[in-house]
Amino acid sequence: MANLMEDKVFMAFTTYAVIVILKMMLMAPMTAFYRITRGAFSNEEDVGKKSSEEKKKLLRTDPDVERVRRCHQNDLENIIPFVVIGLLYALTGPELSAALLHFRLFTGSRICHTIAYVGALPQPSRGLSWIVGMLVTFSMAYRVLSTVIFL
Amino acid sequence: MANLMEDKVFMAFTTYAVIVILKMMLMAPMTAFYRITRGAFSNEEDVGKKSSEEKKKLLRTDPDVERVRRCHQNDLENIIPFVVIGLLYALTGPELSAALLHFRLFTGSRICHTIAYVGALPQPSRGLSWIVGMLVTFSMAYRVLSTVIFL
Amino acid sequence: MANLMEDKVFMAFTTYAVIVILKMMLMAPMTAFYRITRGAFSNEEDVGKKSSEEKKKLLRTDPDVERVRRCHQNDLENIIPFVVIGLLYALTGPELSAALLHFRLFTGSRICHTIAYVGALPQPSRGLSWIVGMLVTFSMAYRVLSTVIFL
Repeated sequence: MANLMEDKVFMAFTTYAVIVILKMMLMAPMTAFYRITRGAFSNEEDVGKKSSEEKKKLLRTDPDVERVRRCHQNDLENIIPFVVIGLLYALTGPELSAALLHFRLFTGSRICHTIAYVGALPQPSRGLSWIVGMLVTFSMAYRVLSTVIFL
Repeated sequence: MANLMEDKVFMAFTTYAVIVILKMMLMAPMTAFYRITRGAFSNEEDVGKKSSEEKKKLLRTDPDVERVRRCHQNDLENIIPFVVIGLLYALTGPELSAALLHFRLFTGSRICHTIAYVGALPQPSRGLSWIVGMLVTFSMAYRVLSTVIFL
Repeated sequence: MANLMEDKVFMAFTTYAVIVILKMMLMAPMTAFYRITRGAFSNEEDVGKKSSEEKKKLLRTDPDVERVRRCHQNDLENIIPFVVIGLLYALTGPELSAALLHFRLFTGSRICHTIAYVGALPQPSRGLSWIVGMLVTFSMAYRVLSTVIFL
């Protein structure tokens, strides 16, 4: 079993997969931070022991909170496909340099995406970083399917 | 490492996993297409340099966009469990014919599900295709747990 | 290939990964149950052949349904990172006792989290169980990165 973790491509995949998953997980504390500073909650038990009028005020949606949540959702929709396809790609035994290029491009594109999304930077910054991530995943999927297709 | 990709069951899993993940990823461009044709965006920076009144009109939800987004969400909730449990199932060394039956049924059921959801076909078309996918995943989970349980 | 499934740590990972994924999947029937008993649907074709006025009444959001859906979403955001990082962690060859501690703590924390969320228990029950799950995943990610980093 240990021999998987002695393969350079698999080690590289492991490193970048953990980095992008950690980046995705950090969106949760960021959402909590925005909920608290903006005073916008979605569960009654999160508001604490207040009068019912004060409660109503805090049970609302806030544009900044919704923005972070959309960014988190976009991560789920893009980072998990990358991890799944990247794992299978690493197992097809690609060149180390090609694999590193894929993993680094994807990781960079998702960090840019988060900055562009949370910072509400003007387009096409967010659109471009999203497309780069998609293309990297498609490229790995193409390599996987062209190597091991078995229908 | 390469010997995983010489195993027929694992090759079949790889093929179908990539297909369903790609299907899931295609929901994102479809959402973008509906957002543009219906004129319904959720981020101010996506609307472009327009007067604030025109902006407000475009920052809205649209039933067709929401439908595609719910379909995407349902994919996340069903396809990712299939991929995780399918990977572990493939590693338990099942019969190739049984494995292929599971993978093909699931892939078919999710394609039917997407057509039924986006096309708003009358029930129970969507419900049935969803249940078939769930049952396939439960069946693989049962095989995995009955083979390698270690609590 | 079969030798992965002869490794005790990998068997333990497999068992707990299937359990938490199944727990996550059960949120879908739970949502369906709440939708039917509360009469709150989001798709027109789910309401059946009724007069357009009756339809409108049933196409609404309900606080109990939204609560279960938020719990499901939180599962997606936490259980999938656990499965991905847990898989890589199991491949780094940790001590069996340490691995079991991680897997059991996470599984327990997510079951508590679901009970606290769906039952709307007073805080900090839900917050604490969420944090325990996050810390377990971070601890595994730390072990993975400190063992096989390759940038």
